[in-house]
Amino acid sequence: MAKIPVGVLGATGMVGQQYLSLLADHPWFEVRYAAASPRSAGKTYREAVAGRWHLASSPSGGMWDLRVEDANDVSRALDANRRGCCTFVFSALEMDKDRTGALEEAYAASGIPVVSNASAHRWTADVPMLIGEVNSRHIDIIPIQQKNHGWDRGFIVVKPNCSIQSYTTPLYALLEAGYDLKRLVVTTLQAVSGAGYPGTASLDILDNTVPYIGGEEEKSENEPLKILGSLSGNAIVNAAEPRIAAHCNRVPVSDGHSACVSLEFGSRKPSIEEVKKIWTSFRGPPQDLCLPMAPELPIIVREEADRPQARKDRDAGKAMVVSVGRVRPCTVFDLRFVGLSHNTVRGAAGGGILNAELLKSRGYF
Amino acid sequence: MAKIPVGVLGATGMVGQQYLSLLADHPWFEVRYAAASPRSAGKTYREAVAGRWHLASSPSGGMWDLRVEDANDVSRALDANRRGCCTFVFSALEMDKDRTGALEEAYAASGIPVVSNASAHRWTADVPMLIGEVNSRHIDIIPIQQKNHGWDRGFIVVKPNCSIQSYTTPLYALLEAGYDLKRLVVTTLQAVSGAGYPGTASLDILDNTVPYIGGEEEKSENEPLKILGSLSGNAIVNAAEPRIAAHCNRVPVSDGHSACVSLEFGSRKPSIEEVKKIWTSFRGPPQDLCLPMAPELPIIVREEADRPQARKDRDAGKAMVVSVGRVRPCTVFDLRFVGLSHNTVRGAAGGGILNAELLKSRGYF
Amino acid sequence: MAKIPVGVLGATGMVGQQYLSLLADHPWFEVRYAAASPRSAGKTYREAVAGRWHLASSPSGGMWDLRVEDANDVSRALDANRRGCCTFVFSALEMDKDRTGALEEAYAASGIPVVSNASAHRWTADVPMLIGEVNSRHIDIIPIQQKNHGWDRGFIVVKPNCSIQSYTTPLYALLEAGYDLKRLVVTTLQAVSGAGYPGTASLDILDNTVPYIGGEEEKSENEPLKILGSLSGNAIVNAAEPRIAAHCNRVPVSDGHSACVSLEFGSRKPSIEEVKKIWTSFRGPPQDLCLPMAPELPIIVREEADRPQARKDRDAGKAMVVSVGRVRPCTVFDLRFVGLSHNTVRGAAGGGILNAELLKSRGYF
Amino acid sequence: MAKIPVGVLGATGMVGQQYLSLLADHPWFEVRYAAASPRSAGKTYREAVAGRWHLASSPSGGMWDLRVEDANDVSRALDANRRGCCTFVFSALEMDKDRTGALEEAYAASGIPVVSNASAHRWTADVPMLIGEVNSRHIDIIPIQQKNHGWDRGFIVVKPNCSIQSYTTPLYALLEAGYDLKRLVVTTLQAVSGAGYPGTASLDILDNTVPYIGGEEEKSENEPLKILGSLSGNAIVNAAEPRIAAHCNRVPVSDGHSACVSLEFGSRKPSIEEVKKIWTSFRGPPQDLCLPMAPELPIIVREEADRPQARKDRDAGKAMVVSVGRVRPCTVFDLRFVGLSHNTVRGAAGGGILNAELLKSRGYF
Repeated sequence: MAKIPVGVLGATGMVGQQYLSLLADHPWFEVRYAAASPRSAGKTYREAVAGRWHLASSPSGGMWDLRVEDANDVSRALDANRRGCCTFVFSALEMDKDRTGALEEAYAASGIPVVSNASAHRWTADVPMLIGEVNSRHIDIIPIQQKNHGWDRGFIVVKPNCSIQSYTTPLYALLEAGYDLKRLVVTTLQAVSGAGYPGTASLDILDNTVPYIGGEEEKSENEPLKILGSLSGNAIVNAAEPRIAAHCNRVPVSDGHSACVSLEFGSRKPSIEEVKKIWTSFRGPPQDLCLPMAPELPIIVREEADRPQARKDRDAGKAMVVSVGRVRPCTVFDLRFVGLSHNTVRGAAGGGILNAELLKSRGYF
Repeated sequence: MAKIPVGVLGATGMVGQQYLSLLADHPWFEVRYAAASPRSAGKTYREAVAGRWHLASSPSGGMWDLRVEDANDVSRALDANRRGCCTFVFSALEMDKDRTGALEEAYAASGIPVVSNASAHRWTADVPMLIGEVNSRHIDIIPIQQKNHGWDRGFIVVKPNCSIQSYTTPLYALLEAGYDLKRLVVTTLQAVSGAGYPGTASLDILDNTVPYIGGEEEKSENEPLKILGSLSGNAIVNAAEPRIAAHCNRVPVSDGHSACVSLEFGSRKPSIEEVKKIWTSFRGPPQDLCLPMAPELPIIVREEADRPQARKDRDAGKAMVVSVGRVRPCTVFDLRFVGLSHNTVRGAAGGGILNAELLKSRGYF
Repeated sequence: MAKIPVGVLGATGMVGQQYLSLLADHPWFEVRYAAASPRSAGKTYREAVAGRWHLASSPSGGMWDLRVEDANDVSRALDANRRGCCTFVFSALEMDKDRTGALEEAYAASGIPVVSNASAHRWTADVPMLIGEVNSRHIDIIPIQQKNHGWDRGFIVVKPNCSIQSYTTPLYALLEAGYDLKRLVVTTLQAVSGAGYPGTASLDILDNTVPYIGGEEEKSENEPLKILGSLSGNAIVNAAEPRIAAHCNRVPVSDGHSACVSLEFGSRKPSIEEVKKIWTSFRGPPQDLCLPMAPELPIIVREEADRPQARKDRDAGKAMVVSVGRVRPCTVFDLRFVGLSHNTVRGAAGGGILNAELLKSRGYF
Repeated sequence: MAKIPVGVLGATGMVGQQYLSLLADHPWFEVRYAAASPRSAGKTYREAVAGRWHLASSPSGGMWDLRVEDANDVSRALDANRRGCCTFVFSALEMDKDRTGALEEAYAASGIPVVSNASAHRWTADVPMLIGEVNSRHIDIIPIQQKNHGWDRGFIVVKPNCSIQSYTTPLYALLEAGYDLKRLVVTTLQAVSGAGYPGTASLDILDNTVPYIGGEEEKSENEPLKILGSLSGNAIVNAAEPRIAAHCNRVPVSDGHSACVSLEFGSRKPSIEEVKKIWTSFRGPPQDLCLPMAPELPIIVREEADRPQARKDRDAGKAMVVSVGRVRPCTVFDLRFVGLSHNTVRGAAGGGILNAELLKSRGYF
């Protein structure tokens, strides 16, 4: 099978690098188009990231010789699209929200689907915010989105913030098993890579933790409600529950977001053993479809007293798994647990690629 | 005024070193007796801590030349006591709980009061577990304790675990202001010095956090209830509320424990501004009595969005202050805040010294 | 081809775990025998490492169900050897030097070859200390060693200390190209995993570096001389040069040892470009023989101003490469460079496996 | 004695904050004038540093209410100078070298002496680069500098780079004792605060070290030669020796630069004991004059095997001491040692203040 040619917007940034790295050997997709800021335009990708390549691994492959285009110039992408070099784009744009939103719409309007990592359209009513294992049914809003805008082939799908990945899939698995979720208090310990590059200054985080990340608590409290919402008529209707209180901390960890959760169920309350069984046996469409980026199991339950840990568990299942541990009763609510996921893979580029795989499997590309 | 000669049990350990360091220039107390394990007995203090001195500062003073005694040999301390060299002892013993408890009782029985940092007697019914600003009235149980055991001059007082110091005083200030506390979820980010030395292995904590500290969550949930309890008849009766759920994490920070708290009040609920005002104006007996180790203010409220932070706030107020910040409404309960205190000063040796100062001001030495 | 069954002595320790992990999918070798301290004997490997598994990855495979034997009991290994389950052993023993040395000899005497990671026999005259790319010719001393001891099939080979791996291969490549080495000053920045587990206490290394590692400077100065020595008659004769002065530092890095080197050549001095060319084109027997554990290139020369770095370069080439950078003139000697290698892979288990592969390719198993 | 009113240029930056903090309780100087970039001009100092105060301690004092001026506007400073509010200025300017150099000259030309921390004038022939204990005699070039420029009261003195502070004073002490220094190889392990704020990105330094700091090796090799140079006629003549080769590394340490040194003497070579004695007994003019910022001893020799260490020794002697340890023979040259100093105190603001104290004691203010 010939690979589908794809583009990456914001290709030189932290998440963009992660996209190119993860796509280097992808069985379905091949990066044939890279766009970034005007500053990088005209350079080879190698030149554009010189001195700014942040990943440990330096994947080999033709991507290093790609000519970087100006991401603001949609016509270049359209040109590539017509030449058969850019069927859709991954957006890892790092501009301000308004410009990102407008630019993503411009790509969609030109006929190029956008699979976005950016936050600009997360709360756009007809844009699905997808976690492959949780709400793939929200994909069905795409035709409505296209109709709303008068777009024929283009559309926009987004993925949620990295901070919610460590608990949203476990929450959904419990819901799916028939247990209502009323409220939860979640405290996150988030890696510095979540702040991009240069991001957190070393002087702010060595021998320190910082109990604040701008905008992160709001995202952590609200985004799960859209994801757990239902497609009703022409709109995604947010779930009314669970109510979430988030405390977000930055910690001196390179990759891997942890979440300590205290959860209150509705009147039906599963036992600890039932909870573990639900999580261990949970599967979603990415697993059923054997998508290339999908982990074999979306959730791994650790029985050790002191796991999951960022350094030891972030890379589990191609860094796409949510590792859960310390599953125990809560003295205030019903259930306590710790969730952990890799913020730049599952929580960013890997999640975006999984979304694209899901879309392809539904016939969108 | 001649200084009161005191002893330190467990003088060569991490907390013991902190005691000797903090007492080096104390206006009331002077370390004249140091005891540790048989391994150290007979050496000078300088020799005994050679290669094991963990503090940044190396206080000058005569303590370096003290002859270290065997802490198991109460008769040596009694001898010193009779010679006027050891009025009471600070216990920073690091043996197992049973041996520590028995040894502390032996000192008390011999007539030497014990101001302890150890956990052995925290749940002994007639032993007060003191935070100077919170429950100094529990000191009144000492005569009952002495009567229970038939001790004349000896007695035991303890201080609570370091993990609860970052939120218990703020909670008490709200209670004292007339607001009932129903429930709270607290997630701690705790420094490695809390595990003693060698304590946490560097391989377990570099680029990592660990979501488990043995026994710490139970202490964090239960100890506040004794401290907030009331002296009724011959016993300290635990408070029934608030119910506490704790998640305790170890983080790569040298000193300073943080606590992220979501709190539910009873029917009366203060506004955010009232909460801040209560904390800012809170004072306890240590402040009223101008005790040497007491910070000018027990609680400092930070208004910056990203404070308190371990590295920047742990040393506030002689490292005896609880710094509080991010005071804001909770979407699940009523109030959210972050508390921070220095775990080896306020949370260990400094808290013990403050307890001793309080006892002296009440005429106990 | 049926895999060769091998044993691992000290299988539960840090390096032992690395051996079992790296051998999980090895094309030639299969771990069929695991031995450790009497404390672990009788348990399954899974039970024996419970709570002590330090690696990020947890390789699947039958090794988890292996019954751990007492490493002190050579007869058990001999039994396994006779049953065809233990052709040779990797030694990752962590006992004291004398006991390790004696035990390794006992295995060899019983007829079981020992490929050791331990330091006990590094200075035994008839034991080769091997870096596959540098002194594989020293393997020829094995028959002499066997004759000296009257051993028929057993023998001992060792690998050098992890600290020297970051500069010894680059030095050898220059020697091989015909440039005499007179003197060098090398300063190492060494990862905490080099100290084993629990090893370095976190309180000693957070926000800190330590300018001393017991015994490490002597090894760093002397071991290269044996490795660069020549097989003359019945003995390995140490090289007389280069003279080495080492400064060894522990730094807060999990894995990866760096070395800053200032080097003085003899009368012939290569240009910087020649040096880079020598290193880039250097190959050794492991490459020529396409050994499974061998990196494609033993040395990678980085041209970026700020590489190699531990986190970004330690995993290059299956973590078996020496990454070299900052190749530039020296204002005091002739050449300066920075070398980096992965201390628990190339510097420990990976290096040991490469040695075994080399031995097998020479017909020793 | 009325305090001398001083100004700080670049008052809101990292070093500027350190100046204001160290000067808060200074017995001779009082900050009455603060200037920074136009962006800060017009704000109170409190407003200007809001969210950018990097030090652990927040000194109290009137400085928080100072109105910040535009550092580019010399006339404002001159005005303050005439009103008796700004006798001289400390320059902690962080602009590019050319603009900093020109601006410092403009202040000097207007009659305001400049005690600078910046690198702009370090190699200006008639500007002394001072370490109080080493080359205070270079102060005598000031009249020549004033004559060269036609300045009456203004002048410029600078201090050297932070990286050289950990070894230059020990080197000088040996020279002064009559031992010629031929060559040295020095490898530094430098703290992130040396890069200013935000400076080093956390992603670049967590679980990592970086073997390169732009421009630092050149400064580390050359600046000592001017400092060890002699005042000959109208010029400072650089010392011809020692020849220095520097390897500069950034490490995950907040404050404190370490230096590992291998040193070659001329024909006369002191014993290790002589070296220690020379360092222990070394004193300079700051000690003789009992300057307020001077440490009691400029050099402390540690005998422990594993000291000095950044976290434990950086604050020794008001963070103005050079701690030296591991004094031992070198296998390549003659002497090895490790030096450590606090880079933002001795290596920046504290060193600048000591220079000003020295100038005042010579009658310059």
